[in-house]
Amino acid sequence: MQQPQRKIINDPVYGFITISRQLIFDIIAHPYYQRLRRIQQMALANYVYPGAVHTRFHHSIGAYHLMCQAITELCNKGIEITEEESEAAKAAILLHDIGHGPYSHALENVLVPSAGHEAIGLQIMHKMNEDLDGRLSLAIDIFTNRYHKTFLHSLISGQLDMDRMDYLTRDSFYTGVSEGVIGYDRILKMLIVHNGELMIEEKAIYSAEKFLIARRQMYWQVYLHKAVLAAEKMLKKTVQRVKDIWQPDDTLLQTGSSLDLFLASDGHTPPDFIDAFCSIDDTDVMFAIKRWSRHSDEVLSILSNGLLNRRLLKCTLQNIPVDSGLVIAARRLAAKRLCISEEAAAYLVFSGNAENTTYKIGNEHIDILFKDGNVREISQVDNPLIHPTLSMPVKKFYFCQLR
Amino acid sequence: MQQPQRKIINDPVYGFITISRQLIFDIIAHPYYQRLRRIQQMALANYVYPGAVHTRFHHSIGAYHLMCQAITELCNKGIEITEEESEAAKAAILLHDIGHGPYSHALENVLVPSAGHEAIGLQIMHKMNEDLDGRLSLAIDIFTNRYHKTFLHSLISGQLDMDRMDYLTRDSFYTGVSEGVIGYDRILKMLIVHNGELMIEEKAIYSAEKFLIARRQMYWQVYLHKAVLAAEKMLKKTVQRVKDIWQPDDTLLQTGSSLDLFLASDGHTPPDFIDAFCSIDDTDVMFAIKRWSRHSDEVLSILSNGLLNRRLLKCTLQNIPVDSGLVIAARRLAAKRLCISEEAAAYLVFSGNAENTTYKIGNEHIDILFKDGNVREISQVDNPLIHPTLSMPVKKFYFCQLR
Amino acid sequence: MQQPQRKIINDPVYGFITISRQLIFDIIAHPYYQRLRRIQQMALANYVYPGAVHTRFHHSIGAYHLMCQAITELCNKGIEITEEESEAAKAAILLHDIGHGPYSHALENVLVPSAGHEAIGLQIMHKMNEDLDGRLSLAIDIFTNRYHKTFLHSLISGQLDMDRMDYLTRDSFYTGVSEGVIGYDRILKMLIVHNGELMIEEKAIYSAEKFLIARRQMYWQVYLHKAVLAAEKMLKKTVQRVKDIWQPDDTLLQTGSSLDLFLASDGHTPPDFIDAFCSIDDTDVMFAIKRWSRHSDEVLSILSNGLLNRRLLKCTLQNIPVDSGLVIAARRLAAKRLCISEEAAAYLVFSGNAENTTYKIGNEHIDILFKDGNVREISQVDNPLIHPTLSMPVKKFYFCQLR
Amino acid sequence: MQQPQRKIINDPVYGFITISRQLIFDIIAHPYYQRLRRIQQMALANYVYPGAVHTRFHHSIGAYHLMCQAITELCNKGIEITEEESEAAKAAILLHDIGHGPYSHALENVLVPSAGHEAIGLQIMHKMNEDLDGRLSLAIDIFTNRYHKTFLHSLISGQLDMDRMDYLTRDSFYTGVSEGVIGYDRILKMLIVHNGELMIEEKAIYSAEKFLIARRQMYWQVYLHKAVLAAEKMLKKTVQRVKDIWQPDDTLLQTGSSLDLFLASDGHTPPDFIDAFCSIDDTDVMFAIKRWSRHSDEVLSILSNGLLNRRLLKCTLQNIPVDSGLVIAARRLAAKRLCISEEAAAYLVFSGNAENTTYKIGNEHIDILFKDGNVREISQVDNPLIHPTLSMPVKKFYFCQLR
Repeated sequence: MQQPQRKIINDPVYGFITISRQLIFDIIAHPYYQRLRRIQQMALANYVYPGAVHTRFHHSIGAYHLMCQAITELCNKGIEITEEESEAAKAAILLHDIGHGPYSHALENVLVPSAGHEAIGLQIMHKMNEDLDGRLSLAIDIFTNRYHKTFLHSLISGQLDMDRMDYLTRDSFYTGVSEGVIGYDRILKMLIVHNGELMIEEKAIYSAEKFLIARRQMYWQVYLHKAVLAAEKMLKKTVQRVKDIWQPDDTLLQTGSSLDLFLASDGHTPPDFIDAFCSIDDTDVMFAIKRWSRHSDEVLSILSNGLLNRRLLKCTLQNIPVDSGLVIAARRLAAKRLCISEEAAAYLVFSGNAENTTYKIGNEHIDILFKDGNVREISQVDNPLIHPTLSMPVKKFYFCQLR
Repeated sequence: MQQPQRKIINDPVYGFITISRQLIFDIIAHPYYQRLRRIQQMALANYVYPGAVHTRFHHSIGAYHLMCQAITELCNKGIEITEEESEAAKAAILLHDIGHGPYSHALENVLVPSAGHEAIGLQIMHKMNEDLDGRLSLAIDIFTNRYHKTFLHSLISGQLDMDRMDYLTRDSFYTGVSEGVIGYDRILKMLIVHNGELMIEEKAIYSAEKFLIARRQMYWQVYLHKAVLAAEKMLKKTVQRVKDIWQPDDTLLQTGSSLDLFLASDGHTPPDFIDAFCSIDDTDVMFAIKRWSRHSDEVLSILSNGLLNRRLLKCTLQNIPVDSGLVIAARRLAAKRLCISEEAAAYLVFSGNAENTTYKIGNEHIDILFKDGNVREISQVDNPLIHPTLSMPVKKFYFCQLR
Repeated sequence: MQQPQRKIINDPVYGFITISRQLIFDIIAHPYYQRLRRIQQMALANYVYPGAVHTRFHHSIGAYHLMCQAITELCNKGIEITEEESEAAKAAILLHDIGHGPYSHALENVLVPSAGHEAIGLQIMHKMNEDLDGRLSLAIDIFTNRYHKTFLHSLISGQLDMDRMDYLTRDSFYTGVSEGVIGYDRILKMLIVHNGELMIEEKAIYSAEKFLIARRQMYWQVYLHKAVLAAEKMLKKTVQRVKDIWQPDDTLLQTGSSLDLFLASDGHTPPDFIDAFCSIDDTDVMFAIKRWSRHSDEVLSILSNGLLNRRLLKCTLQNIPVDSGLVIAARRLAAKRLCISEEAAAYLVFSGNAENTTYKIGNEHIDILFKDGNVREISQVDNPLIHPTLSMPVKKFYFCQLR
Repeated sequence: MQQPQRKIINDPVYGFITISRQLIFDIIAHPYYQRLRRIQQMALANYVYPGAVHTRFHHSIGAYHLMCQAITELCNKGIEITEEESEAAKAAILLHDIGHGPYSHALENVLVPSAGHEAIGLQIMHKMNEDLDGRLSLAIDIFTNRYHKTFLHSLISGQLDMDRMDYLTRDSFYTGVSEGVIGYDRILKMLIVHNGELMIEEKAIYSAEKFLIARRQMYWQVYLHKAVLAAEKMLKKTVQRVKDIWQPDDTLLQTGSSLDLFLASDGHTPPDFIDAFCSIDDTDVMFAIKRWSRHSDEVLSILSNGLLNRRLLKCTLQNIPVDSGLVIAARRLAAKRLCISEEAAAYLVFSGNAENTTYKIGNEHIDILFKDGNVREISQVDNPLIHPTLSMPVKKFYFCQLR
């Protein structure tokens, strides 16, 4: 009477998550996917929000759960989705972050300068597809938006995709920042496909509004919190420093894991790139930081000890670019104080803009289906809160320096 | 008008935690304490409950928060607690878990066979006390129950201490297991000191009952969940295997960190034991497991790959000891199948009892102060639910083997 | 593309409740059902728990929601349930409390001594069935357990029915008593039909245990809280007093609503009983109490003013019957003090047992389906917590008197 | 050792509320305050949000709880607040809604056209002050802003007062509308008094922003929801109809309670106005509606039956005034259909603007204290979200008519 296999996972956010299809089990059991247990979703945000230690593994299972709900709702509304499409969409969302490396976005483009997590992810999916006898093919088509039912892709990557829906909900849950709470359940219930496009019913307009605002608030309060920013920039500078001073015979820089390949890299990817990439995670980097904290290089020592013991650089945020004269002066001072070159001091005193983040805030294009059958973009709706929200700049300029 | 320093920490469990005293800041900033960021509270329970990745750092800050509340309540009821005592009690609860090593109880007595986390913790506190100019002396006296106001010690270590109150609350929050939710706020409001002893008012009797039941339920459902047990036993066996096959020139067993000292140890503690101990955390062990997964030793390879990719031993639980003949037979079979010795197979096929855990369940001695001034132990109260709960055995016998 | 009608109701307990079938809409729109908006679920419990003001209307919609989930889970497990059966079961649970009168159980058997709420409810359902063109026939068959798939009846009235599941969850939510929280979602996911009987899978055993304990705790802490008991007994005595001193020309006893019919009743039910019954609710009784508070009858005045302004009788609870000599003495004293007869004083000084409540606690028969296919009753399971819980007496004896 | 009297109230929103001062007990025990148990906080909003049945009683105790927390925080920051001031501020917030009549704002200015709830409230406070031997004098001074420490008044009535903080939190809790959730605890922790004025620290700026947005969202989604609006306008029209057709000998219009005084009123307040006013509550009005539903007046019958059985007028909302021609035409049609005069039809077909509500949305003047000591009004802060929020119109125009 019972299904051959059926598993229920406790999730503090949604209660229970049910898994019942063999493909989903097989994906989760794959070592490439299990690796996500060792990659934190929010990198170093736990330096400010100690509860925010949840993993990519947990996030993507959460997004899978929302996908299950979204598909059920759409089916209840008469949208045709076959069993195969449903399974593929669920597989695709489960794998949407598979390309993330150690500390996700914080080290993205530093360890592997030539490729972002989405490009790497696609390679990994193809490799997994081989292991899974081609059962991921449709999932990959949906993921890359080559499948004709584009609304399935929109559920994975779009303004109201399950990724964002889960990360906002989960990140606000684990940080305890109530400002990020969204009415995900209401939005899910209001999803609709009209003319082949994913949109929401008129009744969900306030929830969509809330969703947009919650994202902005999470940016200012969490993702771009100045201490979080400082920690993540320090992590980036640490790895860059190691790469810049790399010497094959400097064994204290090395850990003996695949991480060394990426630190020593001249930009070329190794032939067995995917396997090497999938063998590193947060553990390797944190282990390396602990090792580097004993290194004689002053800059590396300051950065890695700072990360270990949470002695963060001082960070200020502002709305206009930081005056370069100011940065140069502070750098010069630091160099003198630490008896290092100004070039070396640039790892400890630097500025930049905080926009370059993986959380894309672009044109928030959300379509609303009105009761009369009309479709209007949310910014065109006669609601004075939406428009300015959309045009609100999210760029901030930071200035990090020694305390 | 504002305090010189005052910090508010977002906690998803309690909302906000306020820190306002210099000593508390200094403890938290100490590298020994920061280390707790890298030790998970629930070891490998996240293999079953993916949300349970919170840290000892977070738990002890939570317990500190409850201590603040408990002291405020007691003061409001006219119990005399000086500023110094209050600060010391808060420092003591913050440090109550400082002696935990990597993966806490899962590896306790394996890495350092000669001492439990409480004995090590006391050594660490003394060392920190030096660094903090003796400002921890009163905290240590309270911690070791040498201070005359013994109720302060009871708040740190007793049937209704802030440690248990937080771990039950936090663990059930992060696992999503609602059965473990306790009415901690009600119990805190009902704490009272009578004849110098900590007890609770009559009105809290149902909350105390709930507290006892919740603990038992967390045991069965979480702490002693068969897959959690399997994972933690595998971790223990992995480390034991490494210690048993240790060779100074087998570099693949070594990681180059202080962990090596404990793996190579002949049982003697190194002279700079505390520093070495405080330099290792979950990172070192997980890094080592990744390294060991490539080792040629079959047993070590199976165990460490199993841990990495969540291929756990099969585990069954029962109420009576496992028949030793059964274990021997299974072990023999495994030895044959893997072409290893029976001695080696004992790392993969084994039984034991699940009682030996740091969560002490002994005589649940909770005193109740009745309105008429009488004091009665909770098991003496005319409530049929309490008595059997107290006498309920928590011992279970497990049998782990290859799948 | 959208369903003809589909409505989503915000529920603070479950999030959103979806209604999509015409029959459900028609039931809810019926004046007999709308009446439940004006009957509080927990009668006078809000005198102790001010948040507990939710209605029978809300509770039965909640139970309907759980029924929807239960049916979905069972269908997913391959249990055959037709569309008609599903709709009927949902209709039946929606109507399960339709027979409750003003202040539900607190006045049950007082206003209508000859019939309990279930018997009245059945009459109302038959009347509604006429209004709804016989569309309730199957629902009534399931409700009265005359339908061959008895597990559908068990979902409405059984140890793990949706009624109990909702009232425990909702009552603990609205009172804020965390001890009553149950893992309803886990139990729902573990429901199974085996040999035609509703039972739960082995994995839900701790949740079932928690469920039984939560019920007991809600009894002691909420339903039988001494002040709640005092208030509800005062309400009962008030109505009894009015009935006892009823005079057709005493207009201050009358309100001009159908309530008068029930107060004046000689035990015979009026010919248009159902219509009269369905026209009264909490409003009528509370309005009457306000009116009675100005009556010259001393007893009535004390009781109704006490209810209005929360000046409750003093209530003590004990495990053995109250000594009748004690009651008589206190009654005599009260009579003297108020210059009333001892017979009259009996409305203000009385004792009894608190068992006679609509919340049935009898033989908690819950079947568990084990993985090996065996079925065992929960009390037979080798778990020391369950057995004593089941045999725990819920009888308490109360003694109410003037302060 | 324990305080003479100390009570803990379970609150599902905040957990536990502690009451420990005699004055607070005495206020709560007063019949005028107990009356608030019978006045729902959100009038008829439960017709759309069935959970929203909480009372003014509960809300004002919640606001009292927040006041306790706010005062504790301010004292911790060194703001001088004496015991007397603290008690008075708590008493004042407890009483801030004491002037509300049946169905609060929905019937405000209808039952007593000459005075709003604040003016009436002040009269009631003065009367209670007599009963309480002048112990409310300081509370009244603070309430009327005649006390020199004006920040105490700001805590009761200001942009960030405890009233708004509680009603937003509580209303969103009981409706289940997550969009209204605010970070009240964060705001409370960030309150500060600077130059004698209440303001918030810079760190709370996002929480203040969230607070403003949450209020707007609650307006659109809840307070001005078209069905809620329809129900509340129907209630108003019902009472107006009764007043307009009032005849001393039309006994079916009368209920025999003090409500009759207000329905028959020629605008003059009776000599014992306060006592009469304090003897009516939601019960009287709902009882009257049930009575009126049997009246022969067609208009009254439609309105009161509609309210009883939730058959609401059709309501549309728009951003521009409703064309009066449209209203007149619809009214004419209704008159014809029901065979009533157009004047009578005006009770069933009408338009208006939805701005006239007790929830004041005016100039949201919130001062922010920056770390550098500067004070800036929130709309002056360089944050693009705030400004448009403040200038967002909250006026909407409604058109109600028969379905």
